[in-house]
Amino acid sequence: MKTETSRLPTLTTCLSPALLSLYDVSSSIVVIIDILRATSTISTALFNGAKSVIPVDNVADCIKLGKQMDVITAGERDGKIAEGLKYGNTPLQYSEEFIKGKTLVLTTTNGTRLLHMALAEGAKGIITGSFCNLSSVCDYLLAQNKDVILACAAWKDRINIEDSLFAGAVINRIKDNFHINCDASKMAESLFNQGKNDLFDFMRDKNASHFQRLMGFGLEKDIRFCLTLDNANILVVYEAGRLIAG
Amino acid sequence: MKTETSRLPTLTTCLSPALLSLYDVSSSIVVIIDILRATSTISTALFNGAKSVIPVDNVADCIKLGKQMDVITAGERDGKIAEGLKYGNTPLQYSEEFIKGKTLVLTTTNGTRLLHMALAEGAKGIITGSFCNLSSVCDYLLAQNKDVILACAAWKDRINIEDSLFAGAVINRIKDNFHINCDASKMAESLFNQGKNDLFDFMRDKNASHFQRLMGFGLEKDIRFCLTLDNANILVVYEAGRLIAG
Repeated sequence: MKTETSRLPTLTTCLSPALLSLYDVSSSIVVIIDILRATSTISTALFNGAKSVIPVDNVADCIKLGKQMDVITAGERDGKIAEGLKYGNTPLQYSEEFIKGKTLVLTTTNGTRLLHMALAEGAKGIITGSFCNLSSVCDYLLAQNKDVILACAAWKDRINIEDSLFAGAVINRIKDNFHINCDASKMAESLFNQGKNDLFDFMRDKNASHFQRLMGFGLEKDIRFCLTLDNANILVVYEAGRLIAG
Repeated sequence: MKTETSRLPTLTTCLSPALLSLYDVSSSIVVIIDILRATSTISTALFNGAKSVIPVDNVADCIKLGKQMDVITAGERDGKIAEGLKYGNTPLQYSEEFIKGKTLVLTTTNGTRLLHMALAEGAKGIITGSFCNLSSVCDYLLAQNKDVILACAAWKDRINIEDSLFAGAVINRIKDNFHINCDASKMAESLFNQGKNDLFDFMRDKNASHFQRLMGFGLEKDIRFCLTLDNANILVVYEAGRLIAG
């Protein structure tokens, strides 16, 4: 049994970007998790036929790319559309009608920043994960059979409930195929087990900080969409500067 | 209701020393938490009559102080007695017979390091917390009515279950008297609610990383002691370089 366990690839969970350097990024597939709302929006755009999503880590670069290329520029800072950009970070915006065949250039407060950190640390592979594409993420990780880091974008480095819940959802599905000696992973799975019957109610009961923030902007529909399983179930892979359907 | 909430002091939970700079340390009382085993040992030594505990952040300083003063030098690195020191970090060592009237100079892998970080960031007050002195910690925080940071020592900056559980235990008792807009606090309390019926069993079921490590050294008795409520129920306050009974 022990020998078998030691042959399994490892899975760890990084609950904040400020902890990423503790993990062996360069030998792992990193799953970028930013449930409210970057990685949910990215899944949705690609599921609805976007050619690719280019994640950029600042608004100026986003605007610049928008002038150079025929793309849609979008992004938020602190939960609102960033100044100088036309579109925000709501997955509901990216219907097939709107996004099919187009390229989306996206910048967000936490998610795109974390992706660039994982890139800078030499991640072996990068995918993005959201409840919207949970099954695709799990199927991919099982098929790859490599070490995995579930990397939560959090909120300005502060741990959040929704990203932790998603890490827990992944662990809950694939744990038998990985060696997990990581308390953060155990905590994330516990949290998911508590919340899984109704993720929206769980977030409301806990009065999760980002839940409050987005509800304050009248974005209940966004939150409900982002907490729905497999409603944009497509694999999202980072390749040569772009996120594309895998 | 809103006005009342905004008048309450805030409570936040910092699950890893690497996240401490995100919190407003200089305006808060910081509770240092290192359940396995530094803060449990400190409570026990003071409860059993130690004059004071001097926390030092490296072994060399510990040895040096031992030569200068009539003290007991103790400490561990990676869960074992550190080289050059006579005593370790087991609370069971510090019986009344052994420690009464004496000064203990202690260095540990995570706990004393975090205490010095909080000090360097200008904490308004520092106390140490463990299940062994849970009630004293809660009573003190309620009486002070100031902002609180529950600071987990973790394991080499990686989040751990036992320190998070203790943060959750404190929150569970005092949350009505604080304004808590902090997902890490909500997660810690959830975890505690899951584990509270039998903390030892919970740690075993989760296969917590430090649980495994100490069980591997044959330290089950230590773990059971450190997970027992109020068995060394004394307030531990940091004052002028020393931890003393408050």
